[in-house]
Amino acid sequence: MAEQEVQNGGAEKAVPAVEFTAVKPQLLVEAPKANDAVQFYKSVFGAEEVGRTNHPKRKAEQETPLILSAELKLAGSIILVSDILADDSSAPIKTGGMGGVVLCLETQDVDAAIAKAVSAGGVAEGEIAEGDGACCGGRVGKVKDPFGFVWLVSSPPTKKECDDVVEA
Amino acid sequence: MAEQEVQNGGAEKAVPAVEFTAVKPQLLVEAPKANDAVQFYKSVFGAEEVGRTNHPKRKAEQETPLILSAELKLAGSIILVSDILADDSSAPIKTGGMGGVVLCLETQDVDAAIAKAVSAGGVAEGEIAEGDGACCGGRVGKVKDPFGFVWLVSSPPTKKECDDVVEA
Repeated sequence: MAEQEVQNGGAEKAVPAVEFTAVKPQLLVEAPKANDAVQFYKSVFGAEEVGRTNHPKRKAEQETPLILSAELKLAGSIILVSDILADDSSAPIKTGGMGGVVLCLETQDVDAAIAKAVSAGGVAEGEIAEGDGACCGGRVGKVKDPFGFVWLVSSPPTKKECDDVVEA
Repeated sequence: MAEQEVQNGGAEKAVPAVEFTAVKPQLLVEAPKANDAVQFYKSVFGAEEVGRTNHPKRKAEQETPLILSAELKLAGSIILVSDILADDSSAPIKTGGMGGVVLCLETQDVDAAIAKAVSAGGVAEGEIAEGDGACCGGRVGKVKDPFGFVWLVSSPPTKKECDDVVEA
């Protein structure tokens, strides 16, 4: 496939190609309803829950822990369902109490992927951070593309990072 | 997997199980920028365009036809990119000029899938219609789940229905 010109582009050819291993829609549910949403998708769409990570900061405070990311297998694909707090400054998008959808894109090279998107007109939001990303990755960055869509770019989950995954 | 109780549920057990064959995030781009978005995802994320259907109603009117649905293969998954008009009453969601994401869910039994979602608390929006669905399906219905997410439920594309797919 030939390299295409993109708006604000031109610099991206200097950046090496980045391989992506998965793209997963992440449904951001007004907390604490993510668990209800998971049950709905299991019951109504026959989704299978294949993993869940709870929000570490909330574990001690909440009777029912908030869901950082529940991974559902639906029609052969993976979708993620997460609790989101209206006042959470680390939330992927401001939903104003409404549900929102972002796209999680997995790659071994988060920095290069973000850089390439920015060079083509995307806007990086926040710093690339280690830790408890909703995609369950090691490094997680966020970029809004020129069309308004938010991509969470993360390194794939490793066993260690997902040790606190619980079965539903 | 055991059947789960869901909020407003109870009636769904009377509805037979529905098989889903695919779930695809559909990115709704403010018209006429969908083609730019496709080029961005190809250039920046290495997406491969595997199909495109233009908006039939706009073909004659527009120099560059609007995209009803471009199908991109990205990291082994399919994402859809579509032009959306602010004043299009048949648009899957009102985006107010901003990008939005809906989820396309393919099944042979659109009616049963919608009925099951409604019986569990979802709200059907509009009628199930034949024709030029953005998912390129035969029958397309729309349901908003209790958490605010819009699902476009469609029957899988057939060769005949996608005869006007053009290569980019």
